[in-house]
Amino acid sequence: MPGNTFGASFRITTWGESHGKALGVVVDGVPAGLELSENDIQKDLDRRRPGQSDVSTPRSEYDTVEILSGVFEGLTTGMPVSMLVWNRNADSGAYDPIRNIPRPGHADFCYSEKYGIRDHRGGGRSSGRETIGRVAGGAVARKLLSIAGIDVFAHVIELGNIRSKKLTYEEIRANVVKNHLRCADPKAAEKMLERVNDARLAGDSIGGIVEIIATGVPAGLGEPVFEKLDADIACAMMGIGAVKGVEIGAGFECSRMKGSQMNDPFVVNTEKAIPDNNNAGGIIGGISTGLPIICRIAVKPTPSISKLQRSVDTNTMKEIDIEIHGRHDPTIPPRMVPVAESMMALVLADHMIRTAKIGPDSLVK
Amino acid sequence: MPGNTFGASFRITTWGESHGKALGVVVDGVPAGLELSENDIQKDLDRRRPGQSDVSTPRSEYDTVEILSGVFEGLTTGMPVSMLVWNRNADSGAYDPIRNIPRPGHADFCYSEKYGIRDHRGGGRSSGRETIGRVAGGAVARKLLSIAGIDVFAHVIELGNIRSKKLTYEEIRANVVKNHLRCADPKAAEKMLERVNDARLAGDSIGGIVEIIATGVPAGLGEPVFEKLDADIACAMMGIGAVKGVEIGAGFECSRMKGSQMNDPFVVNTEKAIPDNNNAGGIIGGISTGLPIICRIAVKPTPSISKLQRSVDTNTMKEIDIEIHGRHDPTIPPRMVPVAESMMALVLADHMIRTAKIGPDSLVK
Amino acid sequence: MPGNTFGASFRITTWGESHGKALGVVVDGVPAGLELSENDIQKDLDRRRPGQSDVSTPRSEYDTVEILSGVFEGLTTGMPVSMLVWNRNADSGAYDPIRNIPRPGHADFCYSEKYGIRDHRGGGRSSGRETIGRVAGGAVARKLLSIAGIDVFAHVIELGNIRSKKLTYEEIRANVVKNHLRCADPKAAEKMLERVNDARLAGDSIGGIVEIIATGVPAGLGEPVFEKLDADIACAMMGIGAVKGVEIGAGFECSRMKGSQMNDPFVVNTEKAIPDNNNAGGIIGGISTGLPIICRIAVKPTPSISKLQRSVDTNTMKEIDIEIHGRHDPTIPPRMVPVAESMMALVLADHMIRTAKIGPDSLVK
Amino acid sequence: MPGNTFGASFRITTWGESHGKALGVVVDGVPAGLELSENDIQKDLDRRRPGQSDVSTPRSEYDTVEILSGVFEGLTTGMPVSMLVWNRNADSGAYDPIRNIPRPGHADFCYSEKYGIRDHRGGGRSSGRETIGRVAGGAVARKLLSIAGIDVFAHVIELGNIRSKKLTYEEIRANVVKNHLRCADPKAAEKMLERVNDARLAGDSIGGIVEIIATGVPAGLGEPVFEKLDADIACAMMGIGAVKGVEIGAGFECSRMKGSQMNDPFVVNTEKAIPDNNNAGGIIGGISTGLPIICRIAVKPTPSISKLQRSVDTNTMKEIDIEIHGRHDPTIPPRMVPVAESMMALVLADHMIRTAKIGPDSLVK
Repeated sequence: MPGNTFGASFRITTWGESHGKALGVVVDGVPAGLELSENDIQKDLDRRRPGQSDVSTPRSEYDTVEILSGVFEGLTTGMPVSMLVWNRNADSGAYDPIRNIPRPGHADFCYSEKYGIRDHRGGGRSSGRETIGRVAGGAVARKLLSIAGIDVFAHVIELGNIRSKKLTYEEIRANVVKNHLRCADPKAAEKMLERVNDARLAGDSIGGIVEIIATGVPAGLGEPVFEKLDADIACAMMGIGAVKGVEIGAGFECSRMKGSQMNDPFVVNTEKAIPDNNNAGGIIGGISTGLPIICRIAVKPTPSISKLQRSVDTNTMKEIDIEIHGRHDPTIPPRMVPVAESMMALVLADHMIRTAKIGPDSLVK
Repeated sequence: MPGNTFGASFRITTWGESHGKALGVVVDGVPAGLELSENDIQKDLDRRRPGQSDVSTPRSEYDTVEILSGVFEGLTTGMPVSMLVWNRNADSGAYDPIRNIPRPGHADFCYSEKYGIRDHRGGGRSSGRETIGRVAGGAVARKLLSIAGIDVFAHVIELGNIRSKKLTYEEIRANVVKNHLRCADPKAAEKMLERVNDARLAGDSIGGIVEIIATGVPAGLGEPVFEKLDADIACAMMGIGAVKGVEIGAGFECSRMKGSQMNDPFVVNTEKAIPDNNNAGGIIGGISTGLPIICRIAVKPTPSISKLQRSVDTNTMKEIDIEIHGRHDPTIPPRMVPVAESMMALVLADHMIRTAKIGPDSLVK
Repeated sequence: MPGNTFGASFRITTWGESHGKALGVVVDGVPAGLELSENDIQKDLDRRRPGQSDVSTPRSEYDTVEILSGVFEGLTTGMPVSMLVWNRNADSGAYDPIRNIPRPGHADFCYSEKYGIRDHRGGGRSSGRETIGRVAGGAVARKLLSIAGIDVFAHVIELGNIRSKKLTYEEIRANVVKNHLRCADPKAAEKMLERVNDARLAGDSIGGIVEIIATGVPAGLGEPVFEKLDADIACAMMGIGAVKGVEIGAGFECSRMKGSQMNDPFVVNTEKAIPDNNNAGGIIGGISTGLPIICRIAVKPTPSISKLQRSVDTNTMKEIDIEIHGRHDPTIPPRMVPVAESMMALVLADHMIRTAKIGPDSLVK
Repeated sequence: MPGNTFGASFRITTWGESHGKALGVVVDGVPAGLELSENDIQKDLDRRRPGQSDVSTPRSEYDTVEILSGVFEGLTTGMPVSMLVWNRNADSGAYDPIRNIPRPGHADFCYSEKYGIRDHRGGGRSSGRETIGRVAGGAVARKLLSIAGIDVFAHVIELGNIRSKKLTYEEIRANVVKNHLRCADPKAAEKMLERVNDARLAGDSIGGIVEIIATGVPAGLGEPVFEKLDADIACAMMGIGAVKGVEIGAGFECSRMKGSQMNDPFVVNTEKAIPDNNNAGGIIGGISTGLPIICRIAVKPTPSISKLQRSVDTNTMKEIDIEIHGRHDPTIPPRMVPVAESMMALVLADHMIRTAKIGPDSLVK
């Protein structure tokens, strides 16, 4: 059970390290007949890429995707879609001084404990660059979902203790692209930006909350006991680096509610029963209700900070104070948006295929 | 991908419905040579059982487990351990009036959407009785973990907006058994009980938060990208009925912290580097650090309430108001304690075996 | 990876030992809405049962199945179908003298090497009784396949060096029930019976070949590289105790053929292209062609024989000669027929569901 | 369940088409600390490569492997090892005339039935070039097995009805490299070569049998019921293109043997019980005995032949006679040798890791 594969019927296997030769993904289970080109993937990779603003790392990574298999004459063939992004601009030497010093809040320590050795350059596989494979795979999932009318989008709803006001889905979709913080409430975004700048000046970092929404999801996705849709989403989200919490619908707030407040009543709508409210976040008993899926994730502050931190030189076994220099995002949530969308899209594509609402073998027969 | 199996190397498959003949579990991957008897299982099933106090349902279920395979002369043999609990005391007729009326907050609606037909009696497989299989399987996991010095325990830290004060692990272990609410802070427990009683009198219900702790977990459990230990825990927890949120360590609170607050520094302790704090909740980069695993789950208020609720008779497609009578827990978190412990134990046993820290084939060679 | 679960989308988990309390199976992934009763299962269990004639063991096992879950008002609900057969008539004492002496040709030695301890009574889980779970699960698969017009049947084509003549599928179906050897060629059956009787009188046993056929299988089942239909069938068949070889279509004979003989040409039939011959055995490139699936398996002679055999007392580490007494089949292939059919049905049901040719969630929506 | 991943604990995911941009494999589950370089892989890819003699296709493919991840400073890191081979020399135009005409004995027809569309160039993913991923992944498995003293080797034992004489393992290892047919019996090899030449001159092809042997395999690999070692080997072998039969140990011959001949007696050897003979082929009850694993596979004649064959133009739905021109092997078994070795190595590496006889996380802690 090596852990680099995600999904059952629609499945990605990712590979690559921050300062290795390349990073990539193999997407398996794509039904034949889907129009797919590198543009479909590049769009999302560009949104994932840092260097777009003051609030993200100024490194000039330019991640160009190549599709190596599984597409013929513009259509998927049902064969695995292998995609690759070459690494460049890697200044590995900068990591030499901390080769044997685990950075607080980073996976360095755990990798050493587990594997005995590790690629310390840029965090190796535990780097944020690992999400290239997730986003490239997620872009295929998204394309597939679009043919079924499913739309997945995310936005930053909280950053450095500033909370976005409540917005409609239309407002979120329209406004999220208008600032680099990917917060759909412009006034909140302004205040968030101040907090980001304060943190950067202090050599520190701040955390936040991202909300992921999927509209157009039909009722009936998810299995009854263990492969519940919400369980799979929780697994997908908690598995993204820096995520420490996941909630669905009313989430942690439900623990302070009464049953009479929390329960979504049913009403008749165009001759069908549907829930009249969405505290459930689109999922009850692990199965989708037909209403939008609502998920929120807690993202911790960037662990790489330039403030002094206590660590241990594992060669000498002496405690030591370190400052982490280099170009680091002072906050992660804005860059988390396309990654979290990708994970949601991957889970939904998987369940759409296993319930045969899409595919499974072909879209063109 | 049918969803009744959980785990990779240590794996349970559960079955059974609330008002069917029986419920049970097949536990596969138990190493040979573990001492195991029905007593080991019954202890946890008894803690799961309702009817023990005012705060849980007064139904007199008596769930006696039978081990049917995989144990020979008091030791496991490496073969699957099949266990079964017969159902009794099922008053199925009480559910006839709501056969075609989905109960708000319950999975009834989603099951009908997905399967076309459903066993409506007592919620069928979506009933809380489904957790019998989880708890029986979890008891085997727990027994296995105990030989490696791992202890899993849980307590109610919030109920109806009352929060337990901060306690040491020793205090939690010692006090959690002292009241039926399974809250280790006696003062908070008293206030919680008032809230529970208020809710019951009002025909309503309340939610809460359960914290699950595992001590003695070695560093190095979990895979780097997708089968991360925290992702697997999130999956396990979110897959329990009524859970709407999961967090690890600082959890959602981390979104309001600075990096300099959140990062756990490393220090030297008995010639080894270890984290000096546990905001991480025992897991960084998806891999255990060697410190205790800390997880909290948000539990929604019991959906079965006797207050009037709006629903739809799906035969006539007319809206209708329903009152749900019968014996129902006014709050779930106290009963969630053994279930959440079981899910944590299952995840840990799985990862202990796949990293070969226990077994995998035999404890006696 | 514990090995008691088979299948992906239609999946069985079996449990139980020869002289334990019971044996059973959990069938997961059965679409809702299938008519299913204990009769459907019992029919196949009765065919599996020994004691029906001179050529099988005279033990009076009577294996009555109970369905414990997953069926409501005569229809499957999409929930796992758990089934159980209680053990009785177990004379465990007879196995005491060989508790520490591995029987040649049996799994005793390997279990001890792997697990350190083993349930020696009647071979424990390595007994032929283990197939009860396979056959009960296979009966559900068969019922499901029947609604898609797929029929699975098997017959003994070789026993003790006597070969059945070539017969049509209709002749096989009609004649296989006419003798206890399950050979559809009555003349060959007569000679086979002589060989069986000779072997029994000599305290010895004989092997044979079983052919399994599935008609009505649509084109398009199977995955292109690793979960090929023939690979899954090979896995299913080689995993039955006593099977030492598996072949599809022309099988080993193809190694002596020319390409011009082996290749099945394509012709037009009712406006569709189809292969005009079936050397491929219904599968090319791992994917079904639409013609019948043809599989043959080599079954070794019963390892339990009363002739003197050399073994080792593992307590004293001294070599010793043993005679295995008791009631044993002098030949296995006739009893293999329902077991091999079950495994074929399980593979086909799995692939029918994953290609969404049946289900996956429900037959009644 | 998309079918491009193989293995549980040691797992490969392959991708790529005959005339696509590249082919490759992601190997997941490689323990950290294994010395690995491109040379280790290239050796086996070179053995797989055609163009080495008269008996294989004269195309000048030159398949150079690049390792893209998972290796740092010469050692594996526990992260996925991604490898890639670029395609070149692809004359796709030659396949235009048969774009809509399924070639007899090829997967063309089945792919069209399943996917609706297909990459017809050189057979697309169903080409023999697909095995590049298997062989590259198998080379990693082999390197890993070598540290545990396990050696996997194969040879052609039958070709065009000529059978190699019985040889010792030492003779096989020494002689298999001495001719391009990879037959370790030089006299048989000479006659086989005549048959190959006859077939080529006639525009036809011939089949054969390959034997795969693994020495040094410890007792105790394999699971008791469904993930038996022999079942996994059968799955691995039958899943190679052109294989129509698999047998273990005495194989199909056992169906003509008596129990007293087939059963391997146990003897005492250096104070341990071991089987004194190997009709079992190293596996009883699905678990390895500690003796060499012996497997044989039936390989059909190359389906691409230049003799006239009947097929159907699926555009016009008219029957048509085709001749397949181009450079094709007149026989496959010699090239099957490294592929079958790879599949055996993959199964053994997987089971060695899941029983923790190697790794699972690291070789260097």
